[in-house]
This record gives sequence, structure tokens and C-alpha cells, in this order.
Amino acid sequence: MNIYDIAELAGVSIATVSRVVNDSPMVSEKTKAKVRKVMQENDYTPNVFARGLGLNSMKTIGLICPDVSDAYMAKAVAFLESDLREYGYDCMLYCSGNAYEDRQIAVNTILQKRIDALVLIGSVYSQADDNSESIDYLKEAARKVPVFLMNGYIEDENIYCALCNDFEASYSAVKKLIDSGRRKILYLSDSHSFSANQKRMGYEKALQDSKIELNKELMIFTYNKIIETRDLLLSRPELDFDAVFATDDGLAIGALKYAKIKKKRVPEDISIIGYNNFEISISCEPELSTVDSRSERLCKIIIDSMMLLLKKKQISHKVYVKGNLIRRSTTDF
Amino acid sequence: MNIYDIAELAGVSIATVSRVVNDSPMVSEKTKAKVRKVMQENDYTPNVFARGLGLNSMKTIGLICPDVSDAYMAKAVAFLESDLREYGYDCMLYCSGNAYEDRQIAVNTILQKRIDALVLIGSVYSQADDNSESIDYLKEAARKVPVFLMNGYIEDENIYCALCNDFEASYSAVKKLIDSGRRKILYLSDSHSFSANQKRMGYEKALQDSKIELNKELMIFTYNKIIETRDLLLSRPELDFDAVFATDDGLAIGALKYAKIKKKRVPEDISIIGYNNFEISISCEPELSTVDSRSERLCKIIIDSMMLLLKKKQISHKVYVKGNLIRRSTTDF
Repeated sequence: MNIYDIAELAGVSIATVSRVVNDSPMVSEKTKAKVRKVMQENDYTPNVFARGLGLNSMKTIGLICPDVSDAYMAKAVAFLESDLREYGYDCMLYCSGNAYEDRQIAVNTILQKRIDALVLIGSVYSQADDNSESIDYLKEAARKVPVFLMNGYIEDENIYCALCNDFEASYSAVKKLIDSGRRKILYLSDSHSFSANQKRMGYEKALQDSKIELNKELMIFTYNKIIETRDLLLSRPELDFDAVFATDDGLAIGALKYAKIKKKRVPEDISIIGYNNFEISISCEPELSTVDSRSERLCKIIIDSMMLLLKKKQISHKVYVKGNLIRRSTTDF
Repeated sequence: MNIYDIAELAGVSIATVSRVVNDSPMVSEKTKAKVRKVMQENDYTPNVFARGLGLNSMKTIGLICPDVSDAYMAKAVAFLESDLREYGYDCMLYCSGNAYEDRQIAVNTILQKRIDALVLIGSVYSQADDNSESIDYLKEAARKVPVFLMNGYIEDENIYCALCNDFEASYSAVKKLIDSGRRKILYLSDSHSFSANQKRMGYEKALQDSKIELNKELMIFTYNKIIETRDLLLSRPELDFDAVFATDDGLAIGALKYAKIKKKRVPEDISIIGYNNFEISISCEPELSTVDSRSERLCKIIIDSMMLLLKKKQISHKVYVKGNLIRRSTTDF
């Protein structure tokens, strides 16, 4: 039983059923009662296609990211905004910060506006692996408007996710380091987000498949800042590594600066792979090999899906894209 | 004759005068007629304090920038959004692109929303030096809401500008290159905006004051891209220079990459100064000396001014901040 059946049984248009679901003032109380009766008799729960997008539209999309001054998010916001604008939508931007409570406040605040859909940029909004943070507030949000997650995953009827396959891309990058003769591969990360965990698992699996024992000493968590990462490595002279796999370009460049100070040759003494393919990855010397996480492609998928949903089409809840290793001068394969 | 006088003469509150000016439905026609009569008799044109901010507020500020994926603009949007959020304001973001027509469309589109004020980020929105582009659309906008210009200048009753003193900062940076013995200073720019022109004039004045003849051959316009700038310089082997002053860090790093390929030592053979103090300026090698254009300070001034205006206080139409030269390793002074 779907909205089309209800419309037919009630003798009204699909749009009218949608309006009844959304309690629109444009529908008479008499019609509302008739449609609701049919819905009740058929035990129909309005699905996502009847909610949110399209009706009573303010033509406004809410965009939430932790911090738009981050290059990954800035690029995503720029792309989403320009594409949505072409479809006639305005963008309400909210930078939530990373803290759990702040993310909740952001979502609840933006929902008080009349938005047609919500896009959450960044995998920090996903379910944490240890379930330590409830994602009920996002499932609540999805009862009001369709929610799109960029590089994150939550299973829900009205949440749609576009992700880079960070596990595979990381596995493949680390495997290449191993195949080029590296055994002591430093893992540098600044996050425990869904995406960061995928990368960590890719790293661990690549070591395991090559029968290299996991050395927890070589898994370092730091801030995503060049200078801080450099200094952290300088403060740990006991660390012995011949390669670096970093979950973000900033961390990788911190390692590159460390290598320069320690007079280690890159890539001969230390091979380095970053992640995201930011502008900084070509500004450093030697230029950084890095995984392109293809944020523009993810944005494109989100926009296309949203526009299909707007036209009441079925869309996928989870779409993966493949990350690409960009080989530059910090690796020798 | 100001709004306070009108309120007193009409025997109503200032808020009521404001509501009449804004034709609020909350004021009776009788009161409207009375207030309008007083306004007419006293030849009173409602000033900015009576328009826009505060009444019938949607607590939404429009932010327009050419491209939020640009590091300067991303940082500004992040700062403005977070500060405005603290004051309870939402942000509507519009990335206009650089073209004149697109900028006009952006302003006119966002004005159709109920915004309380408009912030234009980037000096491309200023009056062009040659007056080739009419800024009437911005003056029109300022009749509806207060307009704040970040790093640009337009003279208007309801336009408020916060600018980095790019002329002085550029003059001082180029003067330092000259004082360190450089005579053939390449000027690299990607723009003819108000701010870029200030930088160019600072460069020209510094040469003039040191009795160095201006060599137009050494003034190069390019795209603000590292690789494109490097390649442009490589394609011009006739250029003879011992220093580079670039109006943006990306251009400066392009010059740095050029120097590396040409086996020129930096700073010994070529001294380089960039502009904006972006993250790329510390990711390159050697790290880039650059002018900090203090965008956070400009954002802070804009927010503070806006909040004062909201409280009906007088604010300055033009506030300058001083750019700071950050000395790193591409200069030897």
C-alpha cells in the first residue's frame, strides 16, 4: 500500500494526499477527513515521499558541517550551494562544531526553519562504532525532512548516504606501501569518525593480509594541523617508521616537515601518503601522494538524489564511490 | 530631524515610527497616517536606523561571496556564521561567482528573502577604479537592508565597510624587498578588484619612492592557481627578476615552484612575499613570508558594527585594519 493506492482509493490526487500528510491549510477539513479515513483503514504510514520535499516548499536546503573553514567542507559547501542554486534552492548554512551536543543543537535549530531537506557534511554525523552517541536526533530530523549524509552512514527510511569507500581506498594505499617494501607504517589520524574508522580498518587489514603484526605504537592520534603534527613526531624520537599513511593531507605534510628536520629523505627513507587531495598537497615539496576522496562526486550524487526524491522517485539509501590514489613524489611506486 | 524627533512629534514610540516606515501590519492605518503626516511636514527621509535590522526580523543574515571554496572566503564565512549564530542569527549563503552579472543576480535573489542585513565578502563587490561597473544594484540593496562590505569600499548612507589597508601593507612589504637589495621585483596578481588595485598602487609607490623605474613587463596577471602560475613563469624565460610580490599565497607558491625548477635559491636568488597567510603558506618549502590580511579581525568588526546598528547606534562607514607582514623563510630580512 503506497501513496498512489491511497490517492486512488480516496479519489484524490497524490499531491492532495501529500498535503493531507503535511496538514496543509490548502486542503479542506472534509477532504482531510476522507483521506485520513482511507489511510487508517489501510493501515498506511506515510512514507518519505509524502513528507518534506516539494510541498509548501520554501525552496531552502539546510547545510550543516562542523567547520566550513576546513578545506574538505568548504569545497563541498561551494559545490552543493552552486548546484542547488541552479535548481532554484537557497542554502541555509550552519557550522555545528564537532562536539556531540553542538551537533544536536545545530540539527534542532535548523529544523525550526522551513527547510525542504537537510544535508550533513562530514562523517562525524554518522553513527559512532561503539554506539556511544545516540543518533536518535537525526532519525527524528528524518521524520520531518529528508536527510542526506555526505561521507557518513545511518540506516533509516528517510536518510540517504553518499560515501567514499574509505576502507578500500586505505587498504589499497597501505598495500602499495607494503608492496614497495615498507614494513613499519605509521598511521596518523585526527579523528574517530565513521570515515576515520573505515580508514583505520583498511590500514589494519592491509597489514594483516601481508602478515605484518599490528604495532599500536605506530598508530598516532593528533590534531589536523601541520605544525602540531610535526612537533608531535619530533617529540617521539623512539618511533621507528619507514612510511606514513595519514587520514588527512595536513597530517601527512606535518610528517613531511618532520622528515625534513630529521634529514630523512622522502620517499627513500620515509614514504608518505595523505588523504583528500587538497591544494596543500601540491604546495608542499616534494608534492604529496594522496587519496582523492572525490567530494565533488559525492555532492553530485546527493544533489541528483535529492532532485529525484523531489519528483517522488525512489532513490538509494547508500551510494559508494571509489577513492583514487594520486601518485606524486612522496612515494616511489 | 531624526527618528527620535518624529516619534516625539507624533506622540508615538521610536519602534512605532520604524514600523510605519516598514509598513508593518501591526500598526493601525490611523497611526500610520498620523506618523506619515509628521514625517512629510518635517521633510523627513527615514534613515538606515529605521530600516531593515530589528523589526519584523527573521533573524537571518545574507552572506554573499564569489566562491566559498576559496580559503580566504571559507575562513570569513566560518567566522561570520559562528559569531552570528551566537547572536541568534541564521545565515543564508550565496556564492555568486566573480562575473558582474552573476554578482547582481546574487544580490537581487537574496534580497527577495527576508534577511536583516547583507554581508558581501571580497573586494570584487567594491566600486571598480574605472567605474566600468555600476554599483547601483548595491545602493539599491542598501535601501532595503544594511549592507556590510568585507575588504571593499562603497560610499553610501547604508553601506558599512571593513577593510585591510592593502596599500600600506603592500607598500611596506615591497619597501622591505627593496631595502634588502632587490631591484627587479615581479608583481604577480590574479585580480583587478579594489583590493588588488590597492596592492598594485602600494607596489608602484614603493618603487617610485626608491627611484626604481616601473617596468610593466614585471607586472604579471595570472590565475590564482599554483601550477598555472608556475607554468606561466616557465613560459616566459625573458623575465629577469630577483624578487616576487604576489597578491595571493597561491601565486607566490607558483613562483616558488618555478624557482625550484629553475634551480634558483630562495631567498638568495629570488625573495618571495605572498598575501593572506593561508595554510598553504606553511605547507610549502621554504615556508612563505606573507602578509596577514587579518580576515578574522575584519569579520569581528562587521559583526560588532551590525549588532550596534541593531541597537540603533551610529557606526562608522569605513574601518581600516593594518595588514601584518609574517616573516618566514622566503625572504632574508
